[in-house]
Amino acid sequence: MQGTISISFTENYKLILNIKVGVDMKTDGKKLGKQTVKLENPPKIISAYSIVGPKEGDGPLRECFDQILNDDTCGKDSFEKAESEMMFTAITEALSRAKLKETDIDYLFAGDLLNQIISSSFAAREFSIPFFGLYGACSTMSESLSLASIIMDAGCAKYVVAATSSHFSSAERQFRFPLEYGSQRCGTCQWTVTGSGAMVLGHEGNFPEVTYITTGKVKDYGQKDPNNMGAAMVPAAVDTLVSHFKDTGRKPSDYDIIATGDLGKVGKELADKLIQEYGYDIRANHMDCGEAIFNGQLQKTDAGGSGCGCSAVVFTGYLYKKLMRKEIKSVLLVSTGALMSPTSSLQGETIPGIAHAVAIEMK
Amino acid sequence: MQGTISISFTENYKLILNIKVGVDMKTDGKKLGKQTVKLENPPKIISAYSIVGPKEGDGPLRECFDQILNDDTCGKDSFEKAESEMMFTAITEALSRAKLKETDIDYLFAGDLLNQIISSSFAAREFSIPFFGLYGACSTMSESLSLASIIMDAGCAKYVVAATSSHFSSAERQFRFPLEYGSQRCGTCQWTVTGSGAMVLGHEGNFPEVTYITTGKVKDYGQKDPNNMGAAMVPAAVDTLVSHFKDTGRKPSDYDIIATGDLGKVGKELADKLIQEYGYDIRANHMDCGEAIFNGQLQKTDAGGSGCGCSAVVFTGYLYKKLMRKEIKSVLLVSTGALMSPTSSLQGETIPGIAHAVAIEMK
Repeated sequence: MQGTISISFTENYKLILNIKVGVDMKTDGKKLGKQTVKLENPPKIISAYSIVGPKEGDGPLRECFDQILNDDTCGKDSFEKAESEMMFTAITEALSRAKLKETDIDYLFAGDLLNQIISSSFAAREFSIPFFGLYGACSTMSESLSLASIIMDAGCAKYVVAATSSHFSSAERQFRFPLEYGSQRCGTCQWTVTGSGAMVLGHEGNFPEVTYITTGKVKDYGQKDPNNMGAAMVPAAVDTLVSHFKDTGRKPSDYDIIATGDLGKVGKELADKLIQEYGYDIRANHMDCGEAIFNGQLQKTDAGGSGCGCSAVVFTGYLYKKLMRKEIKSVLLVSTGALMSPTSSLQGETIPGIAHAVAIEMK
Repeated sequence: MQGTISISFTENYKLILNIKVGVDMKTDGKKLGKQTVKLENPPKIISAYSIVGPKEGDGPLRECFDQILNDDTCGKDSFEKAESEMMFTAITEALSRAKLKETDIDYLFAGDLLNQIISSSFAAREFSIPFFGLYGACSTMSESLSLASIIMDAGCAKYVVAATSSHFSSAERQFRFPLEYGSQRCGTCQWTVTGSGAMVLGHEGNFPEVTYITTGKVKDYGQKDPNNMGAAMVPAAVDTLVSHFKDTGRKPSDYDIIATGDLGKVGKELADKLIQEYGYDIRANHMDCGEAIFNGQLQKTDAGGSGCGCSAVVFTGYLYKKLMRKEIKSVLLVSTGALMSPTSSLQGETIPGIAHAVAIEMK
């Protein structure tokens, strides 16, 4: 153990005396418990932008999105190029809202569902920003925000962009069947969101701050049905939430909203039930982005929305604005991912899940 | 600007006076130039492990690898499962060498070439370690090492694992053709390495340290030929190298070895030529892991090895040992990736590249 007395002076030569006793900050001073980090200099989400397809723009959150496409091909000749174009737009507009140029940005963290994350890579190609490519399936929004926040808090950057995307048509073709096949869907199926969300993190100003990050472990309870991803992801969501509460000493009611990514209607009910076995009740303030983004019955989206873009656009379009308007003070964003591929499923593997939790608070 | 005078005392009440004046560490105090970070508390690579397939074990570096498989299926019923098993082994053995248990590890950073990075995800499933999934194509080893080092330096972790893998057969099937097809290869083709490398980072002991990280931007000079990935990645490798030298003020000769990931024979020559246009000559100490791992003529591997596993096993098996034995003092590891997918190529896209540089030095 070490003790430190530090005396700082600002530009105005005002003396600040800090006495800190505890674990050597050099090793893991920010770590709480096994999975959580408390940020010392919480980065602020200084801007956010959401762009969605027509179906999302027809749903319950239609008033919240920054841009609703009429044409989900974005004028491109493939769905993959359209998805990349959406991400490019989300990043460009988020920069514009932050009144920043790409040369001001230290890092870009992005990922998506496509093989070799081509949506992100080709969007990143259009920016002269050092780029870290990520893959967390539908957990990518909070994975991206986690790493972006850590690198900011570490003193490595002034501004960082975190982004992700998904597209119904590119995802259907890759994970399931071409649209023309007209395959049948079942009640537990989810509808991949066509959308991209991007956020710019900075150090200054009165904006929502990222305060805690709980990084998920891969959890697998043996679910095999790729038509029921919600259930596959529940163990991971619950594990991360329980770890978050234990590590921070917080309770569910400390957050205005606990927003899981895309458990969907089915997964949300399962999660609410399972977490009670660990002594936590989240029913009062648990919303699931997948359940919220569509009107399941009217829009025939079965269990709800899914995809990286789901929690991305619901956070950047809806929750971020609520925080900025001070309608709510705190959100625990828990994007959830199913870590399978068509190959792994065809080879008889089960579907592991992962969930990353990020606490975002308006001071 | 801020100034800080800090007075610390250790357990023996020894006084340490530290005076630091400079940019407010809260924003980007570690940043050098546009793309480089100088780590304040350089994490140490306290163990490393390399596992390779039979062909790699027959090559020029055969004496260096920690484990050479007789059977590249690892007894599994698919190449994808075999690849994941290799990564599981690499991580397990690296932990064992560091005399650590999985419960000691704060984070696992890993990625691979497979769709939805299933090699990494299914390996991560076997460990109870918070997991960040990455995708950087063949640049993943240095991308993983970069983020692992940053999170260590940030005070978020005591121990972190960085790993990656590739497998000739899983890559051929996914990116090109099934093996049974017997497709023809050309002189610029590269041979995906069957191998996995893992490293454990810690804070203590006399081990090679990660000192600087230069994060790459996506660079695309219009190369379209997926049979010549080396050439596609050259612009990114050169761009990152030049940025590294400019940001740090270092010269190529400051490193004993500059190790690019997998430009291969063709790409290496191009890179040596292109970087001279920027005023740097790296020919004296530039090795390419892809060129080094196979005997191109004898083993019929055309331009050389490729894949995430290439720079991973050449670093963990060969370069790390040279650093530990103090035969060399410094390595600049520059893993290089081609950010395409079969889909993007078939849609007529060019092949963007990316390269991340990590300086590793033995004090």
